[in-house]
Amino acid sequence: AQAQTEAPSVDLSGYTRVKQDLVAPPFAPAHEQVATGGPKIVEITMETEERLLTVDEDTGAEIWALTYNGSVPGPLIIVHEGDYVELTLRNPVDSMMEHNIDFHASTGALGGGGLTHIFPGEEAVLRWKATKPGVFTYHCAPGGAMIPYHVTHGMNGAVMVLPRDGLKDRDGNPLKYDSIAYIGEQDFYLPMNDDGDYKTYEVAGDDYSDSIDAMRTLTPTHSVFNGSVGALTGENALRAKVGETVLMIHNQANRDSRPHLIGGHGDFVWENGKFGNPPQTDMETWFIRGGSAGAALYTFKQPGVYAYVNHNLIEAALLGATGHFVVEGAWDNALMEQVVAPKSIET
Amino acid sequence: AQAQTEAPSVDLSGYTRVKQDLVAPPFAPAHEQVATGGPKIVEITMETEERLLTVDEDTGAEIWALTYNGSVPGPLIIVHEGDYVELTLRNPVDSMMEHNIDFHASTGALGGGGLTHIFPGEEAVLRWKATKPGVFTYHCAPGGAMIPYHVTHGMNGAVMVLPRDGLKDRDGNPLKYDSIAYIGEQDFYLPMNDDGDYKTYEVAGDDYSDSIDAMRTLTPTHSVFNGSVGALTGENALRAKVGETVLMIHNQANRDSRPHLIGGHGDFVWENGKFGNPPQTDMETWFIRGGSAGAALYTFKQPGVYAYVNHNLIEAALLGATGHFVVEGAWDNALMEQVVAPKSIET
Amino acid sequence: AQAQTEAPSVDLSGYTRVKQDLVAPPFAPAHEQVATGGPKIVEITMETEERLLTVDEDTGAEIWALTYNGSVPGPLIIVHEGDYVELTLRNPVDSMMEHNIDFHASTGALGGGGLTHIFPGEEAVLRWKATKPGVFTYHCAPGGAMIPYHVTHGMNGAVMVLPRDGLKDRDGNPLKYDSIAYIGEQDFYLPMNDDGDYKTYEVAGDDYSDSIDAMRTLTPTHSVFNGSVGALTGENALRAKVGETVLMIHNQANRDSRPHLIGGHGDFVWENGKFGNPPQTDMETWFIRGGSAGAALYTFKQPGVYAYVNHNLIEAALLGATGHFVVEGAWDNALMEQVVAPKSIET
Ligand SMILES: [Cu+2]
Ligand SMILES: [Cu+2]
Ligand SMILES: [Cu+2]
Ligand SMILES: [Cu+2]
Ligand SMILES: [Cu+2]
Ligand SMILES: [Cu+2]
Ligand SMILES: [Mg+2]
Ligand SMILES: [Mg+2]
Ligand SMILES: [Mg+2]
Ligand SMILES: [Mg+2]
Ligand SMILES: [Mg+2]
Ligand SMILES: [Mg+2]
Ligand SMILES: [Mg+2]
Ligand SMILES: [Mg+2]
Ligand SMILES: [Mg+2]
Repeated sequence: AQAQTEAPSVDLSGYTRVKQDLVAPPFAPAHEQVATGGPKIVEITMETEERLLTVDEDTGAEIWALTYNGSVPGPLIIVHEGDYVELTLRNPVDSMMEHNIDFHASTGALGGGGLTHIFPGEEAVLRWKATKPGVFTYHCAPGGAMIPYHVTHGMNGAVMVLPRDGLKDRDGNPLKYDSIAYIGEQDFYLPMNDDGDYKTYEVAGDDYSDSIDAMRTLTPTHSVFNGSVGALTGENALRAKVGETVLMIHNQANRDSRPHLIGGHGDFVWENGKFGNPPQTDMETWFIRGGSAGAALYTFKQPGVYAYVNHNLIEAALLGATGHFVVEGAWDNALMEQVVAPKSIET
Repeated sequence: AQAQTEAPSVDLSGYTRVKQDLVAPPFAPAHEQVATGGPKIVEITMETEERLLTVDEDTGAEIWALTYNGSVPGPLIIVHEGDYVELTLRNPVDSMMEHNIDFHASTGALGGGGLTHIFPGEEAVLRWKATKPGVFTYHCAPGGAMIPYHVTHGMNGAVMVLPRDGLKDRDGNPLKYDSIAYIGEQDFYLPMNDDGDYKTYEVAGDDYSDSIDAMRTLTPTHSVFNGSVGALTGENALRAKVGETVLMIHNQANRDSRPHLIGGHGDFVWENGKFGNPPQTDMETWFIRGGSAGAALYTFKQPGVYAYVNHNLIEAALLGATGHFVVEGAWDNALMEQVVAPKSIET
Repeated sequence: AQAQTEAPSVDLSGYTRVKQDLVAPPFAPAHEQVATGGPKIVEITMETEERLLTVDEDTGAEIWALTYNGSVPGPLIIVHEGDYVELTLRNPVDSMMEHNIDFHASTGALGGGGLTHIFPGEEAVLRWKATKPGVFTYHCAPGGAMIPYHVTHGMNGAVMVLPRDGLKDRDGNPLKYDSIAYIGEQDFYLPMNDDGDYKTYEVAGDDYSDSIDAMRTLTPTHSVFNGSVGALTGENALRAKVGETVLMIHNQANRDSRPHLIGGHGDFVWENGKFGNPPQTDMETWFIRGGSAGAALYTFKQPGVYAYVNHNLIEAALLGATGHFVVEGAWDNALMEQVVAPKSIET
């Protein structure tokens, strides 16, 4: 802190200031894929929100989620390499807890965590330079056991730092997308009563001791996309058309995952999420290291419903890690054809 | 389905039809490493088989396995990029369950799963084009919790889509192999009685409810190669000679693994299994994302027994994930020498 | 053994003999980053040591650790590609157990494990050629369930085989480091009483049966860096200066990990640890396959405390996988600035 106070101020005269309006997942804020103009200071505001969240309607499982802007994951932030992110972070006066933010994409001070500890009723402003291109996790990190407690209560999200000239394949050819699907996989460790029912709590933080015990098993009760079972299915399914390209961003702030698109592929995949590296091609299943974000580009070639899953199928089917893409367009028998529909075996 | 029925039929006049005789693991069907002639329609037949399988003779652990062609994993299918796979899938009339197949290598309709649901006594024919080179998982996916249930009961296998001009190193030099070792790692979640004995069941499917409970722990009771403890050791060990190159294909349809060849290496490894990517070299241990297949090429340089393991050594030694390669040839002291055999410490 | 006895002896006339003095982790033995002169025979000595180790002072958790040279992990060995490692391995007469060593970097005889089985009071000498560049795990592997037992009791470490001309980025430009941080992550499975207290044992090996039961859960009670909670924090923290480059070597002989440097990055990362492959850049979190070592290079750009963690944050905060780098130097507001320190929200 001493060193920071005494450091010379930085000349920002070459930068343009812009505001970025954050939106709720699975959507992405308005942005350019290839930067126009010089570097920017991108101003964003986030508020910590502690809220009771239903994780699974079927069982009534719920959690006092700790969130940025009310969503799990927190909103996607998008800038270009060389831009600054300037975040105003606010903790409402009616919160129960201290929060902060650690940006994996930033450099120094515990990713900003050391400079943003705010108690209920406080705010702080942090500015950091996006020097490394890629998708990166951010999360709350108040210290000690509170770090996994806040992170496994939903307090995490992702920032995407695009190369100024956009995404490229391994040979340097440009890659574009038509839409972004921003998916946060969240492992929850919900305490249970002896009879197997999920416990309920009065306010945020009351589950602390029970949660620590549940976390120590390293076995989540839920692993869901975007906060709850079904957050990306049915009416909430993602939508696309044949011929469209989607950039799937998968954030997992704590636990490994292995996304797979049933019936599709990762045409170009940055498993580690860092765009300075050549993407891998033709992937069936890619791996997200716990505490990172990854990105996969796919151009839909057939209509229908595609399930997007964590391909530990137990986690997909029993713990909640399933979303859907509904894709419209014309079927292509050159890729797949039902030559004979199911019928009685000829004998 | 509507879209599929109305889609224009595809012109297959440029393709030659061939039948591929599938063989049981760890072996591979006859195939060319470099394709000769034009693209083919490769006709295969698989039958779903529900059978009582002994997982570990020592403990008597058994499972009503769900299989393709009776083996765990199902047979390896080999084609070249640009070929079609044309599968006739049959479900015998005496089966207990509905089955289908999802090919990760294919495009659309849940990997074919949406077009191949067959009840006992039914058959269907699916044709799909192999557009992406690599080794890929296939598995049964009847929907919901039945997906992990069928997959963790053995109903999975791999297809290899070779580049038409064969495998290459990162500089484009051709890579050949003398044999294939096709290894399916299977995580089983066998229900236990209160006294710690594995439960037994009358027919396939009777263990459903108990299995779902066991799966929810995310902790397998067994993780075995090719269906049972010892399936690749002793008389069943894999065999090679010094100077020979083996292509090790590792399929894990549900759970991450980390293969290692004790005393050897992965000279060239496609961890993600996709041959359009440059292989990694000199690997000690490679990583198989749950729900994918990977491939590693090694040329044996010394004789002896090589254990091939999942290098979570608990899984290797206690859960069953160990196989053996027995390699004949001449020892090379230039690579390793026992300078002093074990003897009493000189004092 | 027959084949080895009869094999022609090897001509070592072109090699220079040198002794390498091994040092305790997290430090590295004196070495050249770029080799001078011709290939060497690097002579080292290690002694197996069984010792009571306090894993966590807070809880009193302890283990009869099985070690090489008394430390967990065992000492880092450094050679260059083309050199020989010539190890004298000694098992003191007062040991309880047989030990050996399996070098993943070596070729044949189970990595040397088959040639180094030494009972208490015995010694053996093994020489092997370092043909593959990278960091590699070594560990004890006495056979069967004793393999995971010894490995999860601390009996593992790493060897680094440098390319003769040193490390390179993906374009072939040389990479240098100012210091090495050698970190071994150790998963312990400590048996507990029914009341939740860790059990204690009289001598090494007495915990065998209980340990096997604990290991079968696949859920460690501890995952610590360099043998115990806090081994790399406080007075034991790693130290660096702004502008200095550290090579972080992460060895995990049994279980996957995902290192992350809070507030920093992996500028150049060999996740699989093998230097013949192009390093990945800009990483937030990298993945260590259980049974391997990885390496990451980072140049510090800001002063302060950096936590180095397994970014399964439960493992970091509750199981022990946290270390610290304390970095001195001048703060750079151009990278990050606390624009507004925490204060009451303006209303
Ligand atoms: Cu928080
Ligand atoms: Cu973090
Ligand atoms: Cu089935
Ligand atoms: Cu699948
Ligand atoms: Cu030992
Ligand atoms: Cu090993
Ligand atoms: Mg509130
Ligand atoms: Mg439900
Ligand atoms: Mg960069
Ligand atoms: Mg039958
Ligand atoms: Mg047994
Ligand atoms: Mg392709
Ligand atoms: Mg002693
Ligand atoms: Mg403690
Ligand atoms: Mg080499």
